[in-house]
This record gives sequence, structure tokens and C-alpha cells, in this order.
Amino acid sequence: MAFELTEDFIKELQEHLSLAENNAVLELVNEIPEQDLSAILYELETEESVALLNILTTEKSAQVISELDTDIRLKILKHYSPEQIASFIQFIDSDDAVDLINELSVKTGEEVIAFIQNPEKADHIIDLLHYDEDCAGGLMAKELIKANLNWTIDRCIEEIRAQSKNVDKVFSVYVVDDNMRLLGLLSLKKLLLSDEHAIVADIYDPTIKSIESYRSGTEVADLMRKYDLETIPVVNVQGKLLGRITIDDVIDLITEQADLERQIMAGISNDTEEDDSVWLLSKSRLPWLIVGMIGGILGAQFIGLFENVIHQVTAMAFFIPLITATGGNVGIQSSSMIVQSLARDSTYIAMNPDRFIKGFVVSLINGIAISSLVFIFNLVLKQEMDLALTVSIALFCVVLVSSFMGTITPLILFRFGVNPALASGPFITTANDLLGLGIYFSVAHLLYSF
Amino acid sequence: MAFELTEDFIKELQEHLSLAENNAVLELVNEIPEQDLSAILYELETEESVALLNILTTEKSAQVISELDTDIRLKILKHYSPEQIASFIQFIDSDDAVDLINELSVKTGEEVIAFIQNPEKADHIIDLLHYDEDCAGGLMAKELIKANLNWTIDRCIEEIRAQSKNVDKVFSVYVVDDNMRLLGLLSLKKLLLSDEHAIVADIYDPTIKSIESYRSGTEVADLMRKYDLETIPVVNVQGKLLGRITIDDVIDLITEQADLERQIMAGISNDTEEDDSVWLLSKSRLPWLIVGMIGGILGAQFIGLFENVIHQVTAMAFFIPLITATGGNVGIQSSSMIVQSLARDSTYIAMNPDRFIKGFVVSLINGIAISSLVFIFNLVLKQEMDLALTVSIALFCVVLVSSFMGTITPLILFRFGVNPALASGPFITTANDLLGLGIYFSVAHLLYSF
Repeated sequence: MAFELTEDFIKELQEHLSLAENNAVLELVNEIPEQDLSAILYELETEESVALLNILTTEKSAQVISELDTDIRLKILKHYSPEQIASFIQFIDSDDAVDLINELSVKTGEEVIAFIQNPEKADHIIDLLHYDEDCAGGLMAKELIKANLNWTIDRCIEEIRAQSKNVDKVFSVYVVDDNMRLLGLLSLKKLLLSDEHAIVADIYDPTIKSIESYRSGTEVADLMRKYDLETIPVVNVQGKLLGRITIDDVIDLITEQADLERQIMAGISNDTEEDDSVWLLSKSRLPWLIVGMIGGILGAQFIGLFENVIHQVTAMAFFIPLITATGGNVGIQSSSMIVQSLARDSTYIAMNPDRFIKGFVVSLINGIAISSLVFIFNLVLKQEMDLALTVSIALFCVVLVSSFMGTITPLILFRFGVNPALASGPFITTANDLLGLGIYFSVAHLLYSF
Repeated sequence: MAFELTEDFIKELQEHLSLAENNAVLELVNEIPEQDLSAILYELETEESVALLNILTTEKSAQVISELDTDIRLKILKHYSPEQIASFIQFIDSDDAVDLINELSVKTGEEVIAFIQNPEKADHIIDLLHYDEDCAGGLMAKELIKANLNWTIDRCIEEIRAQSKNVDKVFSVYVVDDNMRLLGLLSLKKLLLSDEHAIVADIYDPTIKSIESYRSGTEVADLMRKYDLETIPVVNVQGKLLGRITIDDVIDLITEQADLERQIMAGISNDTEEDDSVWLLSKSRLPWLIVGMIGGILGAQFIGLFENVIHQVTAMAFFIPLITATGGNVGIQSSSMIVQSLARDSTYIAMNPDRFIKGFVVSLINGIAISSLVFIFNLVLKQEMDLALTVSIALFCVVLVSSFMGTITPLILFRFGVNPALASGPFITTANDLLGLGIYFSVAHLLYSF
């Protein structure tokens, strides 16, 4: 039942656009939801997109524009005056409108706000501009329906009717006192089933989850996920109702966080996508490659100190990749478990001694398993006994140390407000490479007593 | 405003439970939502949990049980007869009830179903048992409110009143024809604002997104995310309305998929959590450590072939970690971009030649950057020219090859129905370690003409 974007469709659309056949264009795109229309714009030239938007109604264009990603939206909005942008904003919810205005230059943004006809809308937007993008205040929209405690059901319904143009999705009405303090909510279901003369105070549900505007987006997501909420009201420290956050914005947030974490784990800085420019893609990958490279050069310098050892026992060199790879793998395994726990629960108690003991026992078991297996391999492959011992003892120590590093690093990063996923990326691999080499050659030094 | 779990609270609760002070227990937990109560159960002994559940009403206990994870839920349900479990199920939505029954043994599950008093509920559950857990049919609940096209608004409201006990969250009514084929929906807002004598056919919204029961959970998530849906109706191939999926279940799915992907990237098999047993944790990590180990042993054998080279030019060994680490880093960077694209859009066209060309150019830029930097380093550090050349040429080739491997591997895995994130884990690191060593010594062989 979903619209499917085909090359033929794009070709046909482009043809009609180039010939300015507005009716044909409208016929083609009329039934297509704004989410799919915005996907179509990614396939068009900016000029074609603007031509298409100009054919649509202002409301539809506004919806399409509100769905776009920053980069393409900016390109398109360059073709519109602040006054025209303001006319789009009339049809965009306040939270999305603020995102859009924040992308513009400060000057253009202020001009746009000045042109907004609806004073309530303008107030909402100016209000929301104060909040940091990643906190509850920055995620909320001002559009919601509130009812006073003393209203009748009839009056509530009239309020919904009056507001229904501004508020797209209504599942419930927020109940407030005379000072606008949030008291509870009244679901539409309850409203529908209640007598029209009933008083809100007698039927509303006072057990409501709300969140303060300064809370982080992660806290919002945790709360909504835990209590299966579709919307959550946002209040200030005095309990006054400020706005509401809808679940679709939280889903976007969860998805973005998962993407960000994946990129950090993979050693890609910036928020890049496959369709970004070659230059941007290279630039976002290079920093971690350079970190890895510096690690590699340091490693080379370090091994250089043991040139004599390798010269005497060349086979020492054969096992370098085994040592470094095992350290890297163990480190990422350990850190990812911590990152997972931190991602699930932001109130997580970080420095729990049990965690370290458990991690130690797990790595003890795996360390013994891996080093014994390698020892058997080496005996079967007829390596020298001294070397086989060196490799297995070093490997065992590497597993223990890397596991400890993988556990402690994300916790330390988290404590200092850095995304702990960083500890599951090239960072830990590079650090563990060096540590592993240190352990390997130290063990060799002891065993061979060079 | 959220409940906070403290050690003191648990101690007090345990004391009351041990003394069978039921009223004190009730007073303590009365105001606590089921989601927090289920979190409390993780801190109690199974016997204590059962004692607590027995003090609560059956409805509340059922809600708490429905929130639990499989392992702890199974432990608790062992203390209840099939008849008692059936009495809990009366209060659990059909989708969660099926999840619960699927966790029991087949025999117990059938006994439980036989004891369910409400025949409609039993039918719903038997119906849902047919669906695979990960498809739309397995995610849906049967509880929903439907209205015939020819009904009046009044009749709709009566239907909601009759059903409101069974259906927890009502945002809209699904409109069907006489053959139960889904035609559209009627939002509660519209219902509330319409005249009570109006006919459904005249006011319902026919533009509705629905999904077939056989579609994957990922497709459900994509669709609901794209169109900002709170619920989506599920239909069969004939378009008959079967059930509905609510967004909270999809959020759980998205979170689980992100967790799974992180584990795969980190080389952890099974779905493990930090609080699993030491044995389970070790077992889930060992397989990929062994893969890495076998890679390391093969690497050792391979380098062994070049024993003479290393014996003559010991410094060759110094740069082994640099070569392998760079290969690993580049491979994971490339594969994670593909994994991201695949995660965002399941209908993604995989084998796009542009992608390979772009990836090639990006790795060309980064390859030149990294190998030039290393070359300069090596000259500054007064390495031999032949060696400096070998390292930089090998490094350049490693970046190109690893990038290609990182691009193609997730696409191949995806084509064969394997989770592409596997290509961002130890798999790619191990493969690229071996490839890197091969390239390094081949270049040395050519340059030094041994």
C-alpha cells in the first residue's frame, strides 16, 4: 500500500516540470503523502524541487519542506524570501518550525519570525528558541489542548473544535489549574464516553507522567519507552505545562543515537551518510585512521626496541597479529557490554565492584581457553617450547588486561560526559595493540632472559 | 515524577513480605506503576516475588508479569498452575499473552489456553500463535475497535463503550465493510467533533496505511517511523482487518535490533546482557575470539613463509601492527556505512555501481593521505628507503582492498539473509588482517626482489 519511487516516475515528473505542465504534475503527485514527496525531492535538481513546491498548495509544500534533511532543505529555502518561508511556517508544528529556523542564518531567521502572521505561533517559536536542541524543551511542540479543572465536558469539546486546526494529533487533553500547573489528563476515549455536563475535575486521571524541560533527550526516550507513552507533557520547575513531546520525535532521536553510536564504534567522526560528498566522507574517516596510524608508528618504534630479540628468534614476529587482534577483540567485547547497559538506562550506577569481578572471571575463563588452544596449536605445529610458552602466557595476560581496559574506558568516558561508544571503536583497538605488544615483549624478555 | 528504586525500599518491602504483613506491603506498592513493580521483582528472590504478586489484585499482577523478561518470568510462573496463569492472561493484551504462552512448554501452554474463560480471548490467542514472532502478524494484538461503514456515530460510540474494557488505548476506530475488509479510519477527534447522527461512510478517512501480516518487523518499523504512526492496522492478503500494532512494540523492536547489531559488531553471539551468568557471558564471547585466534594462527603460518625476509630485514616486523590495524579500521568504517544504509531502508537497492566508485574515491583519498604521512614519518625516523617504500605502498593497497572488502561483505551477507552488521565485527578484522599481511609481504617480495 506504500508509494513506490521508480525511475520512470521521476522521469515523467521531470518532463512535466520542464514543460511547466502544472496540471499534469498535480495529477501525478496529488495522492502522494508528504513523506514520499520529500523523498522524491532527493532525486530532483533544486530548481525542479522549487518548481514542484510552487505548484503544490502552501500547506502541502510546508509539510514536504518540514520532512526534508537539513542540507537539501537549505538549498531549497535559498530560493524563497523570508516572507515566503514564514508562510510555510504557518503550517508547520512549532517544534519543527524551530528546527527549520535554527538552520537558517540568525538574520534570516529573525526576518522569518517577523513575517509570521499568527502572533501565537510567533510567540511559541520565540519561546522554543531558548531551549537546547537535545533537551526535553528542545523536543517539545507548543501545540496541545489543555482544559481547566472546572470546565464541563462540553466546554472541552468546544476547545478541541477550536484548536483542532492547530493540533494535528489529539489523543488526550491536559488538565491544568488556574495557574496553568499540570494536574493530569483526560483521554479522548474518556471524553467521548462521559456525560457532556460532567466536570473535568470529576473524571480526569491525575496519575500522569511528565518531564521537566531541562531533562535530556535520553531521559525523555527512557521514560516514554518504559511507560509506553505516545505523548508526554513537558513542565517547568514549578509544574507549569509548557508543551508536549510526541513519540515520533523520540523515535527519530533513538534512531539518530543508534546511528551515531554505530559511527563512533566504526571510527567515523561527524554525522555522515552514504550519499554525502566524497570529500566529507574522506574527512570524517581520516581522523581515526590517523589515530590508528600513530598507534601503528608507535608500535613500530616499540617493537624496534626489541630488534635483537626478533633477530635471534624470528618466529617472535609471526605471532604479533595474533596478540594485537585478540586484544582488540576482547576490548571491544567488554566495552560494548558496558555501552549497552549505559544506553538502556541513563541512571545506571557506573562503578559497581561486582561488574569488575564478573568481567574478570569471564576473561579468566576465555583467557585460559584461548591461550590453551594456541599452546596446543603451537605444539602440534612444532614451534619451539619457549616461544609457545611466551605466546600463550602473553595471550592470557592480553585477554585479562584488554578486558579490564574495555570495562573501565567506557565508564570513565561516561563519567566525563563523553559518549561511551567511543571506547568500542578504534580507540580501544589502538590502545590495546600497544598494550598487547608491551605485554608480549615483556613476557619474552622474562622467559628468554635476554 | 518517576518512582525511584532504592535499597532501603527493597529492604523494607522484604521485611514486610517475610512477616506476611500484607497491608503494609500494599500500602508500600499501591501507587507504583506496573513497569516499576516489575523492576522491583528483579531485586527480589523468586519466592518473595510470588508472595508480592499474590498480595496484589490479579489484574495488577498480570500487568506486572506481562512487563517481565523471559527468564525471570519463567521462574515466577513455575509457582502458578495453568489455571492461575490463565486468570492472569484475562488481563493481558493478546500480543503479550501470546509471547508469554510461547515461553512456556507446549503442554503447559495448551493447558493455559484451555483454562481461559473468555472464549474471544482464547480465539485471539490461538489465532496469533500461528504467526512468526518477527513478522507483522506476530507483533499485532487482536484488541481493536472497528466500525462498519454504515454505522452512525452514535453506534460507534456505543461500540467503544462496550469494548473500552478490552482495548486499553483507543486513538481511532478502524472502518470496515461487511466482509471485514479495511477501508480506512475514523480518529477519536473526528468522532468527538461530529454530529451523533452522521454516518461513518461520510466522515471517515480512506487514506490509511496498513501492512500485510507476513511483512517483517523491520518493514513495520520503517513504515511507522516514516509516516509517524502510533498504530498500524494489519491485514491479510485479501485486505481483511486482522489486528493492530502499537508503536510501543515497535520501539522495543528498534531497541532490540540496535542492541543486536551492537553485539554483532562487537563479536558477541547470543543475546546477552551484563547481568547474565558468567558462564553464558564467556560462552557468547568465545566463538569470535576463536575465529580471531584461528586468523592469528593462520597469520603466523603465513608470516612464517617469509622467515628469511624478516631475518634479513628485521624492521619489516615492526610495521606488522600498523598494516593490520589500518586494514581493520578501514574495513569497519566502510562496512558500517553500508550497514547504516541497510538499517534505514530495507528496500535499499544493494548493488549500485555508484556506491563502489564513490567508496573507491574515498579510500583513494584516505589511502594517499595515510601512506604519505607514514612515508614522511619513516624518512624523519631514518628508516631505510626500501622499507619506507614497501610500508607505504602496502598501506595504500591495504586501504583500497579493505575498503572494497568492507563494502562488498555486508552487501553479500544481506543478499543471503544474514545480518549485515556481522561484516562490521571481528569477521572483517580477521579477514583484513590476513589480506593485509598478504599484501605487505607481496610488496616486499617485489621491491626487495628476494
